[in-house]
Amino acid sequence: MSKTKKNWKKQLHEIIYEADTPAGKLFDVVLLIVILASILLVMLESVKSIDNKYHDFLNISEWVITILFTIEYIARIITVNKPTKYIISFYGIIDFLSTIPKYISLFFGGIHALAALRALRLLRVFRILKLARYLGASNNLVRAIKASRAKIAVFLFAVLIVAIILGTIMYLVEGEENGFTNIPRSVYWCIVTLTTVGFGDIAPQTPLGQFLASLVMILGYGIIAVPTGIVSAEYSNQNKTPSTNNPTPQVHLNSQSCANCLASKHQDGAKFCHNCGHPLH
Amino acid sequence: MSKTKKNWKKQLHEIIYEADTPAGKLFDVVLLIVILASILLVMLESVKSIDNKYHDFLNISEWVITILFTIEYIARIITVNKPTKYIISFYGIIDFLSTIPKYISLFFGGIHALAALRALRLLRVFRILKLARYLGASNNLVRAIKASRAKIAVFLFAVLIVAIILGTIMYLVEGEENGFTNIPRSVYWCIVTLTTVGFGDIAPQTPLGQFLASLVMILGYGIIAVPTGIVSAEYSNQNKTPSTNNPTPQVHLNSQSCANCLASKHQDGAKFCHNCGHPLH
Amino acid sequence: MSKTKKNWKKQLHEIIYEADTPAGKLFDVVLLIVILASILLVMLESVKSIDNKYHDFLNISEWVITILFTIEYIARIITVNKPTKYIISFYGIIDFLSTIPKYISLFFGGIHALAALRALRLLRVFRILKLARYLGASNNLVRAIKASRAKIAVFLFAVLIVAIILGTIMYLVEGEENGFTNIPRSVYWCIVTLTTVGFGDIAPQTPLGQFLASLVMILGYGIIAVPTGIVSAEYSNQNKTPSTNNPTPQVHLNSQSCANCLASKHQDGAKFCHNCGHPLH
Amino acid sequence: MSKTKKNWKKQLHEIIYEADTPAGKLFDVVLLIVILASILLVMLESVKSIDNKYHDFLNISEWVITILFTIEYIARIITVNKPTKYIISFYGIIDFLSTIPKYISLFFGGIHALAALRALRLLRVFRILKLARYLGASNNLVRAIKASRAKIAVFLFAVLIVAIILGTIMYLVEGEENGFTNIPRSVYWCIVTLTTVGFGDIAPQTPLGQFLASLVMILGYGIIAVPTGIVSAEYSNQNKTPSTNNPTPQVHLNSQSCANCLASKHQDGAKFCHNCGHPLH
Repeated sequence: MSKTKKNWKKQLHEIIYEADTPAGKLFDVVLLIVILASILLVMLESVKSIDNKYHDFLNISEWVITILFTIEYIARIITVNKPTKYIISFYGIIDFLSTIPKYISLFFGGIHALAALRALRLLRVFRILKLARYLGASNNLVRAIKASRAKIAVFLFAVLIVAIILGTIMYLVEGEENGFTNIPRSVYWCIVTLTTVGFGDIAPQTPLGQFLASLVMILGYGIIAVPTGIVSAEYSNQNKTPSTNNPTPQVHLNSQSCANCLASKHQDGAKFCHNCGHPLH
Repeated sequence: MSKTKKNWKKQLHEIIYEADTPAGKLFDVVLLIVILASILLVMLESVKSIDNKYHDFLNISEWVITILFTIEYIARIITVNKPTKYIISFYGIIDFLSTIPKYISLFFGGIHALAALRALRLLRVFRILKLARYLGASNNLVRAIKASRAKIAVFLFAVLIVAIILGTIMYLVEGEENGFTNIPRSVYWCIVTLTTVGFGDIAPQTPLGQFLASLVMILGYGIIAVPTGIVSAEYSNQNKTPSTNNPTPQVHLNSQSCANCLASKHQDGAKFCHNCGHPLH
Repeated sequence: MSKTKKNWKKQLHEIIYEADTPAGKLFDVVLLIVILASILLVMLESVKSIDNKYHDFLNISEWVITILFTIEYIARIITVNKPTKYIISFYGIIDFLSTIPKYISLFFGGIHALAALRALRLLRVFRILKLARYLGASNNLVRAIKASRAKIAVFLFAVLIVAIILGTIMYLVEGEENGFTNIPRSVYWCIVTLTTVGFGDIAPQTPLGQFLASLVMILGYGIIAVPTGIVSAEYSNQNKTPSTNNPTPQVHLNSQSCANCLASKHQDGAKFCHNCGHPLH
Repeated sequence: MSKTKKNWKKQLHEIIYEADTPAGKLFDVVLLIVILASILLVMLESVKSIDNKYHDFLNISEWVITILFTIEYIARIITVNKPTKYIISFYGIIDFLSTIPKYISLFFGGIHALAALRALRLLRVFRILKLARYLGASNNLVRAIKASRAKIAVFLFAVLIVAIILGTIMYLVEGEENGFTNIPRSVYWCIVTLTTVGFGDIAPQTPLGQFLASLVMILGYGIIAVPTGIVSAEYSNQNKTPSTNNPTPQVHLNSQSCANCLASKHQDGAKFCHNCGHPLH
């Protein structure tokens, strides 16, 4: 590989993967606008009245965006040292899935709605907006949620068992004539009620059913306190005890990502990737 | 009783009641799958369209599961030293209730839905998944909920009184022509609204009724803060003060249960039951 | 006044107003059952189908309860040293209001539903169940709610202003053809949505209206955190700092009440009323 | 400018802008009543049945209030040293917008509902009720909300992405025949469900859709804990650490505002504006 080519690849890598240089920032902002436009397009296309009026315009715009995404996807593969690592990474898969729907629609049509996965691309916005800073600050939050995870899972599992038991009882009490046509539907109603969503498409009609529903609601009202209590207490704890897992919270992390292994969150002024030791440019 | 027979009982006890040996683990995993399958069966049977198509298959599967549960129930009784203790224990009653519905349906039919009680059997999953560890960690949570219990009960009692008063007022204001046909139904509506569930099957139609409903909703919005605040503050407290009730939180508890008294949560390496002194194998 | 009569009054006072002697406890439990029965009666009477069937039984039961309440009310006035103080006290007014509806219905009928005020009498249950202890423990909660009151009021006032502004905007956007027939109704819808109750009797139909509704809901979702956060933080604070307003939390309070001034919450073993100095028997 | 005129302006400024003198307090209370009356008028006017009956009365009252607001607006401009500063201030714009709708309706009609912006004028109530004290106390709350802002924004952004993804999936699963007519509408439904509002105007009908909806609801139930946890933990923190940004919380602030620069929250006994150095009268 010639020196010039390597340099050209380096520069492109800097533009595409980093947000520190003006060119890199511009690229990211343009990309963000294209992503937002593409999501808007998919949404508008699903509205019949708009699709009928502006079908050709929407179709052409879709193709323009698909081609832009294709170029970006290929550029990302070329400029990275280990393309397979990018391809099987989280963003690599999202980039691929958000590019292909239009190509597939050429042959099959219909599964076009897959394009809505482009919304996941919006996660990139966090990098552009220098949200690394905010996220650094909210590391405590992430750790609090992680610390609460197991307990909330046990809790939700218990809620599910309660929903199955109560759903079956409601099925027996209300019966098919009041909308509780089968047990899965009753369990669905029970979850709707326990979570205080309350659509009202199914609602108890018999006095006994309404009495039981009241108990379910008060139960749901009481237990909504539990996950909230867990998270806020854990979060409070994380703030108090400077965890040993996070000894350097003052270090400012930049948005650079390594050309070799795609690891990001390098410290300002770092010369080598903290993950693979590859030099950072 | 011959030595061989006792040994055979011991081995079976180890397989059925414990999850530490490979055989015991396999037994528990198989049991869990059978329980999940049985719950799915009961649910599917209640869906008319599925029951019509696959009635015979569902019926035979039900019998297979019922026979498996019967064998398990008998095996549990045989291998335990004090069968009556098992039979009147929480899991003993659940095991019995989740086995008999199919037998009863032979003579009566109809009350088959009792089978949904099998969902309670899912609680066994906590033992298999070595959730003892998680539960050990969430002992603080259990203690926080216990500490909050009395206050939340007083609080819910106050909410109930509020619901009865406001429900009666709404009955007087809205009257029968707007769906508030009687006081119990109005109280039901009031609970639906205070808990922010809001089905919408009954909704105030008069301006005065809507004004009062607004007050009820804002009240409900304000008081939902109270149980949440109680739990999170108590949970926070439990984390701070290492309670004297829990002096040895570091001890690792295993999933073994005593053959004599069914007590579980023995320490790793324990040779005798902490409850009755019976040797553990 | 003869010594005997005074003694007889003292004994009756002890039975009616206190829950420490067996006779006093029995009186309170019987009273509680009568109150619960009376509330059930009022509720059942409002259900047409039940009233048609059992009208005579319900009517006679109502009269029995009304006479019992009348006797209790008169006994309370007689045995207290300062009857006017009882009559204008909180419980005095409730006792009066829960007794008269049946008498009024003799002349007018119709406003019988006032009888539902009897639910307020249930507050007596706290005394009987020795809830003084629980309430003593939850004094922190009461103080936390008091400390949060001003902030929650400011907060709810801000929510109300938001509801008026957003309600008017929704009225302009959705218009009368979609159920937002006037501004008060739109404001009502806005409160229903902000509090996450969501009846669904009024729901936006236009795309713009649904977009705005989404913003309202996310706003409501965000601000529900505020009162909860206030209460739990205040409650947490109350637990930490032993407030100077509550220097003797360990003292056990009994359910006795003074015959002279009706003050309650005397310490165990107290010989004189802490409020008026009258001897306690 | 003559000395007398200046004095006259000073006195009027004291009445209009301050709430410390009896005249100033009276002015503010009268203004508050007029504002409340004007909001009530706009609301009543939108109710067809009331407008038909009392059209002339409502119209005249509207004109009276508009003229009162006009006088107040002009008086505020005259008595302030720097009128442009007032005109482009928050309250200046609100005062202007709440005065003009009736004048505009002379020429156009229809956009009269703009008058509902008068609700924003209610914010003045905080000054009159000496809420400065309460707000001073709830400075911790304001700071807690500010500290939580970035995290809650990130959180709500994540919720929005989840709503777009799940909304699209529901559109594919339920389809147009069950009310999920297009993706924006599905996303709207998803926000309604995630926030536990649950109107029920759109509700899943297929078993798969109801299963997915259950997951959405349990997800929403789980994540409602996050913003609440953030706010309560931050608020708890604010209470503990006396922030360096707020070194003098004990100073009593009065409701005076500077005639020169409109800055308010002067300390009691302050002789010069803390913002521009202009003498306070």
